[in-house]
Amino acid sequence: MKLVCTQSDLNANLTLAHHAVPSRPTHPVLANVLLRADAETGSVQITAFDLSLGIRTSFPAQIDGGGEIALPAKLLNDIVAKLPNGDITLNSEGDESLTTLTATTGQFYQIRGMNAAEFPELPEIESGKAIRLSVTSLEEGLRGTLFATSGDETKQVLTGVHLRVSGDGLEFAATDGHRLAVVEATNAPEGEEETPSDIEGFAVTIPANALRELERMFGKRAEGDFISLQFEEGQVAFDLGGGQRLTSRTLEGSYPAYRQLIPQQFENQLNVDRRELISALERIAILADRKNNVVKFSIDSENQQLSLSAEAADIGSGKESMNAQVSGQSLEVAFNVKYITESLKNLLASEVQIQLNTPTSPVVLTPLSGTKMTHLIMPVQIRS
Amino acid sequence: MKLVCTQSDLNANLTLAHHAVPSRPTHPVLANVLLRADAETGSVQITAFDLSLGIRTSFPAQIDGGGEIALPAKLLNDIVAKLPNGDITLNSEGDESLTTLTATTGQFYQIRGMNAAEFPELPEIESGKAIRLSVTSLEEGLRGTLFATSGDETKQVLTGVHLRVSGDGLEFAATDGHRLAVVEATNAPEGEEETPSDIEGFAVTIPANALRELERMFGKRAEGDFISLQFEEGQVAFDLGGGQRLTSRTLEGSYPAYRQLIPQQFENQLNVDRRELISALERIAILADRKNNVVKFSIDSENQQLSLSAEAADIGSGKESMNAQVSGQSLEVAFNVKYITESLKNLLASEVQIQLNTPTSPVVLTPLSGTKMTHLIMPVQIRS
Repeated sequence: MKLVCTQSDLNANLTLAHHAVPSRPTHPVLANVLLRADAETGSVQITAFDLSLGIRTSFPAQIDGGGEIALPAKLLNDIVAKLPNGDITLNSEGDESLTTLTATTGQFYQIRGMNAAEFPELPEIESGKAIRLSVTSLEEGLRGTLFATSGDETKQVLTGVHLRVSGDGLEFAATDGHRLAVVEATNAPEGEEETPSDIEGFAVTIPANALRELERMFGKRAEGDFISLQFEEGQVAFDLGGGQRLTSRTLEGSYPAYRQLIPQQFENQLNVDRRELISALERIAILADRKNNVVKFSIDSENQQLSLSAEAADIGSGKESMNAQVSGQSLEVAFNVKYITESLKNLLASEVQIQLNTPTSPVVLTPLSGTKMTHLIMPVQIRS
Repeated sequence: MKLVCTQSDLNANLTLAHHAVPSRPTHPVLANVLLRADAETGSVQITAFDLSLGIRTSFPAQIDGGGEIALPAKLLNDIVAKLPNGDITLNSEGDESLTTLTATTGQFYQIRGMNAAEFPELPEIESGKAIRLSVTSLEEGLRGTLFATSGDETKQVLTGVHLRVSGDGLEFAATDGHRLAVVEATNAPEGEEETPSDIEGFAVTIPANALRELERMFGKRAEGDFISLQFEEGQVAFDLGGGQRLTSRTLEGSYPAYRQLIPQQFENQLNVDRRELISALERIAILADRKNNVVKFSIDSENQQLSLSAEAADIGSGKESMNAQVSGQSLEVAFNVKYITESLKNLLASEVQIQLNTPTSPVVLTPLSGTKMTHLIMPVQIRS
């Protein structure tokens, strides 16, 4: 294998791929990225795979000799990131196990690689279904749900986002047992008649870490595009075009019947400015953190006001007041300050609506504009 | 005590002072800052003191009632940092132990403080000597030496910078036992005849952490100024003007006779571009880190070149070459890559000179322009 490419191309693609390199590889070859140079297409493919998440990227290069080699991901990434702009030559001809990297301003590195044949193939999905997904809807769906997934690996399906596709609708759901986030998006850009697929409907639960990498890969794309999702039992693959591909195992087990948790009707509701509420919560959290993380919402129907408060004995107390559009009765309800803040940060509309029945029943947050999102939080019981 | 000030003034001064608040206070009151409101001068003084390092700052405010109170530093700092721009009212009248903080957009915080009388006074130096110090020289001297102080608290005087004042000269020195940094600066701005003091000469060793805080406080000042240094047995105080003051204990014990470590003559020397050398070292360090942190310098007199190289068995090797102005013989010498990189990063001239006699004797780095700095590094022995 011998190729010449730019430092910026190689660096950008290594940076993208190395997120799928495991920090503690179960087999030495998994600490590598697979480089494949194809003389016919004039492109280099970089693949990383931790046996659950796989990332493949591709970029154009001058290929003076096709071939493939597995190179230590971190070492290569660290060196390339610090090289100056300009051309880089990679050459593994001659001694196959020793790849040389030469740059134009006097740099000469030799890196010991491994045989490409040892590197596991990314899963190919041949018989499964395929569907086109709107990137905009996918981005909104992930933004509105990923934060609510569980970080506890023993919680199985709760560590992923549940994606349900039906006709031209996409529904995303995530819950860690304390809160629930649901996003309902359309899979066709506004104004377009076309439904992007003839799939009847299916549901799959995809690990949150794979979806976070997918979000990162979107950063390199223009909005409004579609990407392709292929899936079969136990496996999904996102094809982002331009030679970029992400594969992931799916999470097995039945996903909780979350719909029945969301109340159908609410007696009380208030509309507030989202940013103002987040700022106030971030200050109140300083005091709440010192005690039990509890923030109390006092909803004042008469004065059309919302007040937040927290108390930490022997330290102090805080109270923040703001205007709100309240309908229903005045009441007090308490939350874990972390849950309600995270939810608000992922709703994105300028105004949000908070709906509830009693101080001990589920509370629902929704944006007042844009894609339909439902964030459900269980209040904390307070003694008054 | 009752006062009105701006969020930005209070925030900036709390941020500056809180670096002298100990993370694990030996007495509860030391976790506080002392706020003192003076109606006559219309100013607020903030003091923090960990019994070794003390910082006092001052800023103008509308004082509606003079007085003083000790308030928990971290809590106050965290809340004020997150408040919106605008006026803040602090009031500790009424219940003395509970200070209220009110901002203009609906914020109301109560913070439990401590009696100001419990807060220890910053050391006052009454009988000691005082001298004016050029801020520019002090900044250069600290930049050129602080990196070489020891981080090992058991090493006593080596954890500080040794400052020697004589006539209109300032000499800074630091060593951690592996390397030595010396900066010789003048204490009068160029072109000025005036010597800033009639002090005959003295030397003092000041803890590195106090000097790093002093550097931070310089960030708020214009260059070219003088500040006042007062000192007496065991204590120094820097008066930065505008009510800003830093006090520190000094380090006791005799400082090593470092002058005799610096060779008087060199047989070999080379001049190189400093940034180019740093960039090359940062890449070579990626390989050196995997092995023993050793980088080998190959000085080639014939080709007027410097090559750096590092090898890590089973992983790879790297070599970087650059032009250099070499006089003397060709030779190889090896360094701990961390020591030589840190030294180069703190020399600041665009070109540096490296001088040495043999591969096992002390090597000296100096900038080719600007203030006189001498960085001495002991080479690492290599088997060839």
